[in-house]
Amino acid sequence: LKIGVFDSGVGGLTVLRELLQHVPHADYIYFGDTARLPYGAKSAATVAKYATGAVQHLVDRGAEFIVVACNTATALAIQEITASVHIPVIGVVEPGAEQAMRATKSKNVAVIATEATVGSHAYLRALERRGLRAQEKACPLLVPLIEEGWTDHSVTEQVVHIYLDTLFREHPQVDTLLLGCTHYPLIRELLRRVVPTGVAIVDSAESTALAVAAALQSQAAKAHIRCGEIQLLATDSTEKFRRSGERFLGRSIEQVELVTLHE
Amino acid sequence: LKIGVFDSGVGGLTVLRELLQHVPHADYIYFGDTARLPYGAKSAATVAKYATGAVQHLVDRGAEFIVVACNTATALAIQEITASVHIPVIGVVEPGAEQAMRATKSKNVAVIATEATVGSHAYLRALERRGLRAQEKACPLLVPLIEEGWTDHSVTEQVVHIYLDTLFREHPQVDTLLLGCTHYPLIRELLRRVVPTGVAIVDSAESTALAVAAALQSQAAKAHIRCGEIQLLATDSTEKFRRSGERFLGRSIEQVELVTLHE
Repeated sequence: LKIGVFDSGVGGLTVLRELLQHVPHADYIYFGDTARLPYGAKSAATVAKYATGAVQHLVDRGAEFIVVACNTATALAIQEITASVHIPVIGVVEPGAEQAMRATKSKNVAVIATEATVGSHAYLRALERRGLRAQEKACPLLVPLIEEGWTDHSVTEQVVHIYLDTLFREHPQVDTLLLGCTHYPLIRELLRRVVPTGVAIVDSAESTALAVAAALQSQAAKAHIRCGEIQLLATDSTEKFRRSGERFLGRSIEQVELVTLHE
Repeated sequence: LKIGVFDSGVGGLTVLRELLQHVPHADYIYFGDTARLPYGAKSAATVAKYATGAVQHLVDRGAEFIVVACNTATALAIQEITASVHIPVIGVVEPGAEQAMRATKSKNVAVIATEATVGSHAYLRALERRGLRAQEKACPLLVPLIEEGWTDHSVTEQVVHIYLDTLFREHPQVDTLLLGCTHYPLIRELLRRVVPTGVAIVDSAESTALAVAAALQSQAAKAHIRCGEIQLLATDSTEKFRRSGERFLGRSIEQVELVTLHE
């Protein structure tokens, strides 16, 4: 089985990392649309066009199952992506909401994400469908700060305070913070220091991998422990993808293939 | 005369603003490639492909003169852009270097810009050709901070200190700071507070407009004071372009046209 994993850049490698753990028998083909990233400030129409093009490329390359490992693409375009292909598609929003539901006792969750993801209110709806209350907060500076490598920097900590202090003061009943962007797990420890004690921090990487494992089992796929092939594709500088991708994937990356898409 | 102005987003409107002052008789068609911005972290090949496509669109729409109002596109792809069309092309790097040469007494200039612009060393070469010494510093967080609207924020000031203090300490002979990104004029006052007293801050917007005026006069074009038509094109959300563009253009924007490019 070949699983296609799609993200705007390297962030989705945190999801691939969990997939390698929980669905070890599959082959993987990962597509990072690095030429056109970031998706976080783009419109729904543009994200849908880019995402369906990228996912079609994965299908053309033999993917039999698609994981949209990009919060923005999932939030803005999961329906268009699902409708554009004839194979199963799983995004990160529903598994993330599921994870938050398991973590919260007060049924009050805060979600931080990109501007586009928050603007779509996809997480809000996914959490409300589960009977939870949600506070959403766009944090547009966090991705650039993480990409600058300032994952444990006082400036990043101040920015997080500016983004989150008011939210937690005004909503003291919130007991769970859902990371609605694949970059944010890299500042989990810093977030831990800033958010009130007792607030659980959850992300969608592991729960997405578990959702894929469950979907495959329901298709009677049998997991046997063997690490299949991993292909990595990017639409811009493969060297840069390789370098920064290793931090997200948590293992060394040897080869990245450059892909050109026609819109 | 119809002048095509190209930028990856709204930043180039600071150049259009100066053009309206210094070449008031022309019609303008401005192209912001907002769907694919930012260019600042992309590779030279990708920037060249996007920029030539956008400039070709301007030519197809009747532009008779091209101003590349994007530092990254100028730095990485001015030759490809110039070769791809049969009309005059002016970028922002040479006029910016010219402006720095007029400002410096010590012949020591610092340039701040995006990662891609600094990586190209286009400013370094343009300044060295003029007998100047240059220190280059990439400041990848400044564009996101400016786009977040934090143009007079203590966090932005700290980030500028982190980026620039060492440079000015190690190179006390530097007496001119060249802003190699069209976003940076929006934090000119903040930069003023951070850089040592006596350091001149220059940008390429006005000198580019003057270079265009000079080029047109040498073609015997006669300036008569009349403000021609201004068309604004963007490849993503026109509403967002309109809103944030007004700060850069310094006048109200009524209409923006959405354009789809085929790569």
